[in-house]
Amino acid sequence: MRCLILVISLLFSAIAFAQTQDLEKIHSYREKNEASIYSDFISFLKIPNVATDTVNIRKNAEFLVQFMNARRISDVQLLEADDKNVPPVVYGAIKVPGATETVIFYAHYDGQPVNPALWANGLHPFQPQLVSGRIDEEGSIQTSVNFPVNDNWRTYARGASDDKAGVMAILNAFTAIKESGLKFPYNIKFFFEGEEEQGSTHLHQILDKYRSQLQSDLWIICDGPVHQSGRKQIVFGARGDAHLTLKVYGPKNPLHSGHYGNWVPNPVMILSKLLASMKDDNGRVTIKDFYNDVIPLSATEKQALKNIPAVDEDLKKKIGFAKEEMNGKSLMESINLPSLNINGIESSNVGTIQANVIPISATAVIDLRLVLGNDWKRQQQKVIDHIIKQGFYVTENEPTDEERSSHPKIVQVKRGMGDNAERTSMDWPGAKSVVAAVQQTTKDRVLQVPTLGGSLPLEDFVKVLNAKFLIIPIANYDNNQHAENENIKLRNFWEGIDMMAAIMLMKF
Amino acid sequence: MRCLILVISLLFSAIAFAQTQDLEKIHSYREKNEASIYSDFISFLKIPNVATDTVNIRKNAEFLVQFMNARRISDVQLLEADDKNVPPVVYGAIKVPGATETVIFYAHYDGQPVNPALWANGLHPFQPQLVSGRIDEEGSIQTSVNFPVNDNWRTYARGASDDKAGVMAILNAFTAIKESGLKFPYNIKFFFEGEEEQGSTHLHQILDKYRSQLQSDLWIICDGPVHQSGRKQIVFGARGDAHLTLKVYGPKNPLHSGHYGNWVPNPVMILSKLLASMKDDNGRVTIKDFYNDVIPLSATEKQALKNIPAVDEDLKKKIGFAKEEMNGKSLMESINLPSLNINGIESSNVGTIQANVIPISATAVIDLRLVLGNDWKRQQQKVIDHIIKQGFYVTENEPTDEERSSHPKIVQVKRGMGDNAERTSMDWPGAKSVVAAVQQTTKDRVLQVPTLGGSLPLEDFVKVLNAKFLIIPIANYDNNQHAENENIKLRNFWEGIDMMAAIMLMKF
Repeated sequence: MRCLILVISLLFSAIAFAQTQDLEKIHSYREKNEASIYSDFISFLKIPNVATDTVNIRKNAEFLVQFMNARRISDVQLLEADDKNVPPVVYGAIKVPGATETVIFYAHYDGQPVNPALWANGLHPFQPQLVSGRIDEEGSIQTSVNFPVNDNWRTYARGASDDKAGVMAILNAFTAIKESGLKFPYNIKFFFEGEEEQGSTHLHQILDKYRSQLQSDLWIICDGPVHQSGRKQIVFGARGDAHLTLKVYGPKNPLHSGHYGNWVPNPVMILSKLLASMKDDNGRVTIKDFYNDVIPLSATEKQALKNIPAVDEDLKKKIGFAKEEMNGKSLMESINLPSLNINGIESSNVGTIQANVIPISATAVIDLRLVLGNDWKRQQQKVIDHIIKQGFYVTENEPTDEERSSHPKIVQVKRGMGDNAERTSMDWPGAKSVVAAVQQTTKDRVLQVPTLGGSLPLEDFVKVLNAKFLIIPIANYDNNQHAENENIKLRNFWEGIDMMAAIMLMKF
Repeated sequence: MRCLILVISLLFSAIAFAQTQDLEKIHSYREKNEASIYSDFISFLKIPNVATDTVNIRKNAEFLVQFMNARRISDVQLLEADDKNVPPVVYGAIKVPGATETVIFYAHYDGQPVNPALWANGLHPFQPQLVSGRIDEEGSIQTSVNFPVNDNWRTYARGASDDKAGVMAILNAFTAIKESGLKFPYNIKFFFEGEEEQGSTHLHQILDKYRSQLQSDLWIICDGPVHQSGRKQIVFGARGDAHLTLKVYGPKNPLHSGHYGNWVPNPVMILSKLLASMKDDNGRVTIKDFYNDVIPLSATEKQALKNIPAVDEDLKKKIGFAKEEMNGKSLMESINLPSLNINGIESSNVGTIQANVIPISATAVIDLRLVLGNDWKRQQQKVIDHIIKQGFYVTENEPTDEERSSHPKIVQVKRGMGDNAERTSMDWPGAKSVVAAVQQTTKDRVLQVPTLGGSLPLEDFVKVLNAKFLIIPIANYDNNQHAENENIKLRNFWEGIDMMAAIMLMKF
């Protein structure tokens, strides 16, 4: 059976790709132009890209418009939401005479919020630095850069991997093909989102508004990290995501913990007991029906999981922990389940400005990841029902004096927006062409992964446009995505260009 | 029995105080000089007074030296610890010819650490403001000040109540007596500490070093708030205090909560479960032997507790909560027990800079208050033993890679310095003189309270000097001590001067 799959795959490669030479041209173009490609990337990274920073986020979009116009991409424009404060989508197109198929290449130019104080010495989210390795290991900041640069070195900045690398891999792949005199076999559209890290709140509206302009046969989503083994992967889906912010109340004003300690309830203790009630000692979520809606994996998907090399023990060492949270479950099994994670918690202060108080409140952010079958609003409600069952009075507002006097345990719950999980079938023929194209760029077998642990706004593509999608991640897995010290390994950036080019050259 | 006590008390008043007229002189001096007393107080509050701010803390000491020299107090000097970075004690003396007794008046000039961002709009810890009431209720900031000022108004600043008000009440009481031409019946020494809010780490050393200079018959500790009923109180002891900082570890670098959520353990969840294990649902600490060492209250102390008006229900409304933490226990019962309180917790971020991560660590500060019989190191150890019993590997350092690989649950425990509880016997005759003196300043019965809920470095006075002490609090109870928006009601400041003067004029 395995042999048969291999033979079929190799046949696909032979049919679809006579163009190893083409890829060599791409490779050589990229090598010749490393310095200018890198310099453009750095200029892009210097523009602060938190989506809520409405002034700077638009500078990113303007940068892309200029960049794409300079490369004579057609029809470059901003796709705007109704509210002009929303980060626009940057759109462009390549119309190929006679071509019938269209593929849209997606990446996002916004990044997660930043706390510069947490970044390593000498680093800043919007002052990109080249580092000769990992900053927390052997790497040191390089003040002068000579090309070719060692491709184990890394560039540190917000968005370096998530997902300005994706945007730049796509645009440089296009340029490389064009400048190498190669032909595009199908129509291409570019779609660069600016609100992904804020939950793609207006993506649905934009897709709906520009529905006819955005018809395609496939969306290629360039986002996320390659497999921890270093192997390239094609991902068929992503987990959904929803948040809840819980704020538990103590005294109306901070009180001296000596004069009132033992008597006035402590909000950190109340919140700790609530959070602790949500998981058992084996890491299993104890919230009623939490795992009930999950649609089991298909036989193909289960087989695909088995083909993925187990990296768990090695990863545990690198990440620095002894035992997985869910007793006995592998990483791959875990990300194919809905999760409950705490993103952060805060109450009063610790460290140099800690004080002897009973704090006025304690706040935690809960991050729910969802798999196929979960509904994000239903999943949030399960958590809220659990909170009520623990004896809490739940409100969306600051509690009134009367509420404070009537309820021993009060929690303010803010529901964030969410997305459901989505997945493209592994049996869809178009997927096989993409697998074969990416396989051209590497000697190692490309992995096929049913779902990414992370989330993407796939639900909107599927619901609004009824679109097919595949995710092609390019970043190194240890990229500190979403956190301080975000980085991309240069090799991953260069190979990202190769991968995007291989897909742009594939025959459907 | 109650009648008898009343008769004896009244007799004491009659014997000890023929000087109602003297107090009237003090009162009238203070009224005449309100503007200049207030202006000095404001100048003092403007000097930042966090003990770790070595430059500014010394400016506070210099201010006091000048202030005391200007009032011709003798022997004004700084009592220094061996390390010159330690905030010095400001000392001074009044030698009364023929007097045999000596009373030392203690207050501290340092304040709790500050987070200016948390202070109400228009307020800043070191830019004192006069507010026409509570800032969070009807009060508004007053830009011009005309004397006499409404004595329900409040001054907001760090140290306004805790404890620069104490320092200034003592020094102004001295000045008022002197300027009114009254006689001091005993020798007076002034002792103003600068490291109290940092745990009085070097007090022991300073007391030991200046042992002979610091002999006395009584220490009057001017610190803390009056009773919540507004009644003046004399406090015979204080709870001890000790801290533990607990840091629980997640991944070595922040991880994307989508890609790794469910698989990599979350330090907030681990810490929440640990904290939750420390108290049952009735607020009782579940740590083994936690309440075992407690020396029960004496019959006199139990009776004193009964004489204190119950303010619990009224306080609950003001503070804004429905049910006391320890099921059925009154405030007075609660502060006569050891406590476990969480001062603050922190992990990653919440709010505008929250991010979808599994945080690298979560930290909580635990504040242990102790009563007579507890030993602070033993109490810390009980908590640590409990943590170990929950399956944690405990270290004082950052965990090594090997430790991370070997232990599923790792906690770094930092032990802060501590103090034991101390109490002066209610039956000591000297105490009765002080009660009678303070009683002269108010029509309401002065309360006698076995212990303050808060902590003071009393253990050092008792251990090093074998000294007697009594605590005379002057601040309003709702002073936001130790937190943002610290304030003193002007009436409490003025009455503090009267109280200190009455004690300085008492006959032993």
